[in-house]
Amino acid sequence: MENFSRLGKEDGQMELPPGFRFHPSDEELITHYLSKKVLDNGFSARAIGEVDMNKVEPWDLPCKKAKMGEKVWYFFCVRDKKYPTSLRTNRATVVGYWKATGKDKEIFRAKSLVGMKKTLVFYNGRNPIGSSMNIG
Amino acid sequence: MENFSRLGKEDGQMELPPGFRFHPSDEELITHYLSKKVLDNGFSARAIGEVDMNKVEPWDLPCKKAKMGEKVWYFFCVRDKKYPTSLRTNRATVVGYWKATGKDKEIFRAKSLVGMKKTLVFYNGRNPIGSSMNIG
Repeated sequence: MENFSRLGKEDGQMELPPGFRFHPSDEELITHYLSKKVLDNGFSARAIGEVDMNKVEPWDLPCKKAKMGEKVWYFFCVRDKKYPTSLRTNRATVVGYWKATGKDKEIFRAKSLVGMKKTLVFYNGRNPIGSSMNIG
Repeated sequence: MENFSRLGKEDGQMELPPGFRFHPSDEELITHYLSKKVLDNGFSARAIGEVDMNKVEPWDLPCKKAKMGEKVWYFFCVRDKKYPTSLRTNRATVVGYWKATGKDKEIFRAKSLVGMKKTLVFYNGRNPIGSSMNIG
């Protein structure tokens, strides 16, 4: 991240020439960012914010790190388990929930599987299936 | 281009953190690069090469400025007129020709039309229609 810091302004925003932006491939995200974050929770990247997806509604996501005007934002977040002993993830917020859609995408680096990419859609209200065990 | 030069290495390549790349919108290309180039032929941008598309075959395009590994490369080139008095563009190379495909796309900046984007496909050989006037 050496050159990056030279670009940093005091408010943490980046100063890049027009047309330059953070457009990582899935593999770059895993190799250069996510895997470092997993190994060291203190790792931070200017282009990637950190949020608790269970506490923040989609429309309240902090755009400071995500850079205004960009159509795609990146955040680290820690999975919240539905139950302490469960592998299931709690994706509920106060007013809605994130629900997986489509098939997970396999991400490869040099023919090795390094991660899975999951696409989530946000719904208002309570998950009629997923949350029933919480309520019932 | 101030911050850019701080990133420059001696060979003219850029040193950006992983995942950062030149991914301009059409409007950014016109506003920040093409219009400056039109006004001042001496203007140059590290992310954009310069070629004579009539002299260089597609597989010989210089990848130095285009940055290896990127799927999209950017070049400035001056249109070569088919005939001195004509508005038609000569898009022939030694072994083939570029031919427009699809409809030109209108590029807007704040609701003003600032340019047209043309998509060209390269064909080997001589353009059976476009070049007939040159040959016949």
